[in-house]
Parts: sequence; C-alpha cells; structure tokens
Amino acid sequence: MSPTVSDESVVDESGADVLTAPGEDAAKPVSDTPLFDTLVVVGPGLIGSSVLRRAQQKRTLARQLIAVDVSPEVRARVEELGIADRVMADVAEAAALADCVMLCVPVGAMGPVAALALPAMRPGSILTEVGSTKVSVIEAISPFLRPDVAYVPAHPMAGTEYSGPDAGFATLFENRWCLLTPLEGTPPEALAAVRTLWERCGSRLREMDPAHHDRVCAIVSHLPHLLAFTICGTADDLADETRSEVLDFAASGFRDFTRIAASDPVMWRDVFLANREALLEMLARFMEDAQAMARAIRWGDEAYIVDRIQRGRAIRKSLIENQQA
Amino acid sequence: MSPTVSDESVVDESGADVLTAPGEDAAKPVSDTPLFDTLVVVGPGLIGSSVLRRAQQKRTLARQLIAVDVSPEVRARVEELGIADRVMADVAEAAALADCVMLCVPVGAMGPVAALALPAMRPGSILTEVGSTKVSVIEAISPFLRPDVAYVPAHPMAGTEYSGPDAGFATLFENRWCLLTPLEGTPPEALAAVRTLWERCGSRLREMDPAHHDRVCAIVSHLPHLLAFTICGTADDLADETRSEVLDFAASGFRDFTRIAASDPVMWRDVFLANREALLEMLARFMEDAQAMARAIRWGDEAYIVDRIQRGRAIRKSLIENQQA
Repeated sequence: MSPTVSDESVVDESGADVLTAPGEDAAKPVSDTPLFDTLVVVGPGLIGSSVLRRAQQKRTLARQLIAVDVSPEVRARVEELGIADRVMADVAEAAALADCVMLCVPVGAMGPVAALALPAMRPGSILTEVGSTKVSVIEAISPFLRPDVAYVPAHPMAGTEYSGPDAGFATLFENRWCLLTPLEGTPPEALAAVRTLWERCGSRLREMDPAHHDRVCAIVSHLPHLLAFTICGTADDLADETRSEVLDFAASGFRDFTRIAASDPVMWRDVFLANREALLEMLARFMEDAQAMARAIRWGDEAYIVDRIQRGRAIRKSLIENQQA
Repeated sequence: MSPTVSDESVVDESGADVLTAPGEDAAKPVSDTPLFDTLVVVGPGLIGSSVLRRAQQKRTLARQLIAVDVSPEVRARVEELGIADRVMADVAEAAALADCVMLCVPVGAMGPVAALALPAMRPGSILTEVGSTKVSVIEAISPFLRPDVAYVPAHPMAGTEYSGPDAGFATLFENRWCLLTPLEGTPPEALAAVRTLWERCGSRLREMDPAHHDRVCAIVSHLPHLLAFTICGTADDLADETRSEVLDFAASGFRDFTRIAASDPVMWRDVFLANREALLEMLARFMEDAQAMARAIRWGDEAYIVDRIQRGRAIRKSLIENQQA
C-alpha cells in the first residue's frame, strides 16, 4: 500500500462530472444537481443517519437514499424517522442499486460488510467508508476490491457521545474536518465526488497518508477516549462507600470525562484494536508524561507543574482560534 | 485533628440565630433577614465573585459586602462590575469589619492570608474558606486560629474553566454540592450559619472528614484535571508537523480535555501540591488500570475492553440521575 499524500484543503476544481455532478468551487453557488443518483448508507447510526438527514434536507447529495441495516429494530426506527427513501436488510441487494455505497459500520465490521457489498456493485460506482482508523480498514477492504469500482477511504471527524439512528442530525459535520486518505489507485474523479459529498455536508476537507492519519487520530481522539474510559473504571473500582460518593460529588472535571466515556462500547473497542500500534505509542508517551507530572508533584516542582498546565491553555486558545472548540 | 464526621445532607434545624439569622428548613420560605451584617470575601475570582453576585442578588446573605484583593487590577474590575459595596486592599482592615470572612484564594495562599485576617477579626465572628483541598488548608490555617473566632472549612464543588472576577455568576452553586469538613472544636452555630450561607447560594450540603474529602476530590476532580493537563502537554511535545495537526483536527474527545486544561494554572498547581498524597495514590491506581487497558488492547482482549467502556456509561447514567451531569 503506497497511498497518495497530499495536504491541500483547497476545493478540487477537476470536477466530479465524470460521475454525475458538475464540479464546484468556492466562488460558484452549490449545484442543485444531485451528486449521485442512488446513495446507499450501510449502518444508519450516528454518522450514517446524519449523512441521510443532510442528504434529505439538501437533496444535492443523491436523488434516492437507501439505508441498510442488519438489525430489524434499526430498520424499523429508520422507517419511522423517515430519513431514507428505502430501507433494506440485504447489503448486496442494496449495493446493486447504488452509484455510491457508504459504509458507516464499526471499523471491525468494515471488511466483512465490504465483502458483501463489492461483488454486487455496478461498474463505475464508488465505495466509501467513514472508519475512524484508516490503515486497518484499508487492509480489511483491499482483498475484496475490484478494478471497476473506486474505493475512497474517508473519516469525518465529528461525533457525540450518543449512538444509533436517533442520535444523528443534519448539521453534525458542519465546520468539522473530514480526512480523506486516498490510495495510489484511487481514481481522481471518484476522490473528487467523495470530496464534494463531504463539502455538501458542510465539512472542511484534508487529504493525508493513512498511517499519518492514524497517529494524528490516536493523540487527538483515541487516547482521550481511552483515558476517559479508564478513569471511570478506576473510580468504579474504589470501595463501595467511596464509589457512591464519586457519583454524588462528581465535579466538572469528572463530568466531562463521563460524557466522553458514554460513547458506544463496540465502536470504541474496534477503534482501539484497529489502531493498536499508534494508540499504544501515544499511550506510552502519555504515561511517561504523567509519571513526570507525578514526580513533579511529589517533589514540589512548581515551575514544571505550571508549565504543563499553561501548555493546555495555549492549545485551548489555538483550538478556539481554529473554531474547533 | 479529629473532625466531626457526619454524612447528613438534611437542612440543619438548630438555626443560626446565635449569630444573626433564624434557622430555616425546606418547608419554610427563606428568611429575608440577612445572615450576616458584613461579609468579607477575600479573592473575588470565579468562586468569590460568584458568592458576591449571589449575595447582591438575593440580599439574604449579608447586609454589606466587602471584596478584598491584593491586585489593583482586580480591585478596579470589581469596582467597575459593582458586585461589592466596598472594595479594599488590606485584609486586616476589612476583616476587622466582618461578621464573616470568606477566603477564596488559591489553597497555597490560605495560610498566609488567614494569618493576616485572624488577628484583626472581631470576637464571635466566623472565618470560612472555599479551598479545594481540606487537610492541608486546615493545617495551614490552624496555627493562627483564636478561641473566640469560629473556623468552618468548606468546599463548594462548582467551577468552570474560566477565572477572575468576570468569570463568576450568581447561579454557579445551584444544585452543586458544597462539602463542609468541620473540626472537633467548630461551634455548631457557626457551622449552621455557613451551612445556611451555602444553602442560600443554592448548594446541596454534605459534611465529611477532611481526609476523606481529599480522597474523594482526588478521584473526581484533581486526577481528571491532571490527566487533561498532561495529555495537552503530550500532544504539544509531538513533532512540529504533528502538533499543528493536533490543533487542526482536535475531535470532540480532545476538545473536552482542553476545556478542562484551560483552568487557572496557579490554582491547580496549589491544589496538586496541597493534595499530593491522595492525588498520587489515585494516579497510581489509574496508571495500573491504564496499563491493564494497554495490555488488553495489545493482546486483543475484547471482553475486557468492552467491560471498561461499559463502566463509564454506567457512571454517566448515575450522574445524570443524580443531576450532576
């Protein structure tokens, strides 16, 4: 695997017209023509149902929206919510109708679901997915790829602690980054189409190498979640008496941790396992730093402690300037 | 030091009338009579200025409000905000006028400031403080105590990541816990008065032993802040290229960490040093648990990972039921 590396966030002007829609740039109004005729979203959870809602609201993503889920409960709920034109149980049957299939399933399920979808897909159609890790997902999907179906790996960096079809909303991706990690063989027109799809969802786009993506996400997303899950477990393990008081007296700091820790267990289990190497590296760095902080506290090294706290403030300030906080 | 241990959160019905105000309970409307004639708040930052705003809004806390600060900028700002009847620079001069002196300074400054205030205080008046750690603050203040001035240690568990006189607001303490850690010699009527003060700020009250308080706060507040500060430093230490991307791509998880990490450096340095033993114990427990999580990720122990994540969700649920999240 030797993916294309590019770090531009400019709008692609090559256009996606090879597929269906004319290209667009920042100066022109968004075309009214739907980008795809039929978009199939497999896994209408937080991310998938948000894409459906956005597509339904704007009607510039696809003419027809199909949601696919293995769970009868999820299918029934999506029907009730009315966020897709059709709701189907069979991935292959739906994939056969699509210009674009978007997989929004936990990263551990990406390979098996792609294996079901790909053989049924039409020549010239596009497979994309929204996995939070890229190297492992690309590896899982690659064995099933066909030369006549384009594959565009993507990662919309947006989310809340809620999950399921009720958790989604049409503005989830607005002003959030969507990272594209195209492979060497990814056709430019397919890349441009997926880029346009996410632009029409309101995202800011960036392309990068899959391995680099995984390290960046390990520090900004996966490690924070691991720490939040862990501290909740640590608190839970304290003696019964203290535990009840943890729940009673949770101050603002712990509240934020439990908010993060309320995320979907299966999704995060998969992310941790899929991004194991990068995550363990970042955790090891963090543990060294936490030990250094512990040592500074034990020995009363005030300058060190203040310096570490001030770095947090500086990062916070940059995030606010970047409109990410 | 052998403090009174009590775990009731019921409203005290003994009344605070020895001092100024009649007792109150949940069934009776709050008395209009101010609890104190003159309340002196030393350090009108986030907590102190919130007490002043509440006192000014409700007028049931004190007839006269005096704010004291060493900083000319803070004094000027408090004057501009108009949240105190008088603003003074000299602690002793203000303390001489008070029925109640409330110290809202960083925990490292509690001893020195108490040493200035106590000799000037009137017989029968009350000294209280809002330190986030109790054992070290009680130890720092104890040498300066007088038999004719009551001392009531308290800890309102409320806050935001902002600091200074502009950061406060009158509803900061509503439905938040305020922990009282009375000593053996704390007069019941003084304890009742401080309890009433915090009730009138909207707090829920609980009494506990100072050492127990420090362990509870180490896990629910101090450790989460330490982890948040540390992960920001870890991210900052990454190579320049990656660091810029950390700022660009901070997902929701990291955003919450930087929010916590934006807190006041001097306050938190003092808290960490003041609660060193309990905090290092909780950090050691946490590090063991994080190592166990790392091991589970390395070896693919799915059940362990899901179990730890689910504990976070369970705690989250309890917090919501407890109205603390």
